[in-house]
Amino acid sequence: MNTFFDPESVVVIGASNSPVNLGAMICRMLHEYSSFDGRVYAVNRKGEPVHGCEGFVSVTDIPGDVDLAVIITPVNVVPSFVRQCGEKGIMRIIIETSGFSEEGGRGRVMQEEISEAAREFGIRIMGPNCLGVLNVRNQFCCFYGISDDHFGTFMPDPPGAISYIIQSGGMVATILESLMKDVVKVNKVVSIGNKSDVDEADMIAYLDGDPTTEIIGMHLENIENGRKFLDVARGVRKPILVFKVGRTEEGVLAAQSHTAGMANNDVLFEGVCRQAGIIRVNSISELHSLPKIFTSMLPLRGPRIAVFTNSGAFGGITADLLINAGLEMARLSPETQERLRRTGQLFNASNPIDLGPALSMQTFLDIFDILLSSDEIDGLLPVPSLWHPMIIDAIGELVKKCHYYRKPAAIYTPNAVYRTVSYREEYQVPLFESPEEAVRALQVSYQYYRYSSRKRRPGDHEPVWDNKLQQGVA
Amino acid sequence: MNTFFDPESVVVIGASNSPVNLGAMICRMLHEYSSFDGRVYAVNRKGEPVHGCEGFVSVTDIPGDVDLAVIITPVNVVPSFVRQCGEKGIMRIIIETSGFSEEGGRGRVMQEEISEAAREFGIRIMGPNCLGVLNVRNQFCCFYGISDDHFGTFMPDPPGAISYIIQSGGMVATILESLMKDVVKVNKVVSIGNKSDVDEADMIAYLDGDPTTEIIGMHLENIENGRKFLDVARGVRKPILVFKVGRTEEGVLAAQSHTAGMANNDVLFEGVCRQAGIIRVNSISELHSLPKIFTSMLPLRGPRIAVFTNSGAFGGITADLLINAGLEMARLSPETQERLRRTGQLFNASNPIDLGPALSMQTFLDIFDILLSSDEIDGLLPVPSLWHPMIIDAIGELVKKCHYYRKPAAIYTPNAVYRTVSYREEYQVPLFESPEEAVRALQVSYQYYRYSSRKRRPGDHEPVWDNKLQQGVA
Repeated sequence: MNTFFDPESVVVIGASNSPVNLGAMICRMLHEYSSFDGRVYAVNRKGEPVHGCEGFVSVTDIPGDVDLAVIITPVNVVPSFVRQCGEKGIMRIIIETSGFSEEGGRGRVMQEEISEAAREFGIRIMGPNCLGVLNVRNQFCCFYGISDDHFGTFMPDPPGAISYIIQSGGMVATILESLMKDVVKVNKVVSIGNKSDVDEADMIAYLDGDPTTEIIGMHLENIENGRKFLDVARGVRKPILVFKVGRTEEGVLAAQSHTAGMANNDVLFEGVCRQAGIIRVNSISELHSLPKIFTSMLPLRGPRIAVFTNSGAFGGITADLLINAGLEMARLSPETQERLRRTGQLFNASNPIDLGPALSMQTFLDIFDILLSSDEIDGLLPVPSLWHPMIIDAIGELVKKCHYYRKPAAIYTPNAVYRTVSYREEYQVPLFESPEEAVRALQVSYQYYRYSSRKRRPGDHEPVWDNKLQQGVA
Repeated sequence: MNTFFDPESVVVIGASNSPVNLGAMICRMLHEYSSFDGRVYAVNRKGEPVHGCEGFVSVTDIPGDVDLAVIITPVNVVPSFVRQCGEKGIMRIIIETSGFSEEGGRGRVMQEEISEAAREFGIRIMGPNCLGVLNVRNQFCCFYGISDDHFGTFMPDPPGAISYIIQSGGMVATILESLMKDVVKVNKVVSIGNKSDVDEADMIAYLDGDPTTEIIGMHLENIENGRKFLDVARGVRKPILVFKVGRTEEGVLAAQSHTAGMANNDVLFEGVCRQAGIIRVNSISELHSLPKIFTSMLPLRGPRIAVFTNSGAFGGITADLLINAGLEMARLSPETQERLRRTGQLFNASNPIDLGPALSMQTFLDIFDILLSSDEIDGLLPVPSLWHPMIIDAIGELVKKCHYYRKPAAIYTPNAVYRTVSYREEYQVPLFESPEEAVRALQVSYQYYRYSSRKRRPGDHEPVWDNKLQQGVA
């Protein structure tokens, strides 16, 4: 599978100099503004070079070995190019062209035809109807439509920890744009489309073995092979977040017209997730908001949460959310409350703790120590209003203390989203964009912690996130 | 009640030149960077002027009439100042000071004391433990802590359509910051705190009669008087959006420690909302994201929604969301599908409609006309990916056509939130920030439409939003 992500030589079949040619966009990206250092060839009717990539009429004309072919031609010529690749000895093909089984009828027949050709030559196929691969480490990417201006959004420097398996290319931009202003960055993305051969289970297995991937995020419209998926997922040692469409019959129908999946039983899928310890997320936005619980926060090892805020209204709001998420408002003993009161002029020392407006950095630090060291508390939900510049510094200290005491804090600063995003980007602290998102983060952290504790046997290592954070990598 | 919002003369009791004085912040704001043209006085121990506002030792020393007093002193002197106001003939007082019934014990006794003094003189009291009033029309505001840099966030020019009743001041900034980059702007805000006298029902009645308020948004931690609330709310002709804390017992407890409310029965409140046609929202963010369904969109008059997208994955996602929200995927007849197909090269002409990538403006306009004029469809959920600048122009045309055909479109552009927010601000189109938010907007629009249709009797006018939008005000 690694050849898909790290080829030494690639041919883009269908790249030409005609206007609005998608293959040409890929050649231009790889040759002009990516630092990818493999060879890139173009195949088109005239055999002309495209944006500096040498051109050929046929794949078999290319001198030397080629690792990977990207096919982005009209649908009817795809099968013959798959055969050409076979003759050339290219064993990995990404087919971006659409119009196959997602359209039914003739498309379905054509998809069968390419599968047959692939089997004949022993070729592994990704797609059709996909965007293929994006690898931040070597800047190899065969997504079309990434302009020079936006390339940085897709290729963060340094590369990040999360790799995505996205059935449909359409939402890659949404997710990567969002990550750009978050504390987690992307590592690899693969858009697998109709999955005529390579499917989500293959990709999970590959990414679980990939040393640069720490977390796996998935968007699925269907599961190709439920048994295979379960078998692979059960053995995975990394956290998997999955957003699956098709909770309703209408959703299933819509997904079917899009990437040609079979109708799946959603209840069955839910069961598979529970068995395999897969975290099922509720929205696209959770695919990019939740990974930071693994890279920048310690696991939540119990349900008892202490809320503290200098904006009293959020006490009631977060209490409602925590209870509805199956968590608990930590009960603070009179001793703990007394210690809190001695730190300064608190409005309320029982949970939710109302800090009041006037506080020094030392008061903040003392409160963090009291709460994080207390065995009455498993995690924090801080809601600090940033009315004073000192408070953002205090948040930075809180993050450090959480690592020291090995407890998580899901921080929400009560601001408009655009302002929260800009604080998060500027100070690189793991802020959540709403109280709902912060509570969801704690819920998922606890869910995954319980799962991974059950799964571990004596002698096993602690889960990935724990080791990493203990070593201070985050 | 109007005196609270439009006083000709105000005294800020407790404003002095000592460091970090909250009253002084109010004087400075009103005198230096607000265009409020009423007289502003300060009362403090030395009788000194504060930021250009004439100073007195006692309220009774002020020459001439005073309409409104704002008290922001230590808690123990509040009752005597209430009496001073009574002697001076000031009939409206906002008490910002906290430490009353929300703290129990002595605080509760003090609150009773001020209530008694107020009754004696016939004074109406707002608070204690509140921020008071913000009125964008005359720039009168007694919120402390609004710096001159942020004043514009709180005072949009021109003023907007929504007025908020916020029990707690803490979230005013979050809401107004968010509105700053939205298509709806704020008109008035009132933070009513402990509600020793003026309560949410009084404010609803006032804002319903206020000609500059079109929509009422509320954040409540408790209801002071359920019967009064229901009676007032039933008669209201404007949409009311309410976010109420205390869905769980822990939430009720937390709210109680904050603004001193009685524990309320949430099921009862739910029933009251249903009876009175009040829209109960699920989060703070809905308080600022939903008002645009009344100011910039027509009502949804039926449940049948057509989705169209050029990012196929969102078809399945939105179908799931619509069904779960009690809406329907519109069934398009073969004739409608054929008309859609003739507009250009669509990937899929049945609902969800997949536009594919290559489209001209004319194709967009034709599709809008076909969908909006079809009697198979009540409303649209467009998910246009903005990969080409033309598409944002097409969205502008869509908004106009929605007004022409009198149907709503809840538009979501699949982008990172910060980018959606900046598109919305730049082009002033009613974009939603997630597919969940767009679907929720349609759900609430339909809910309110059904309620207001039931409520209307023959001869009654159409609901406010309808009249406005028919006249092209939006």
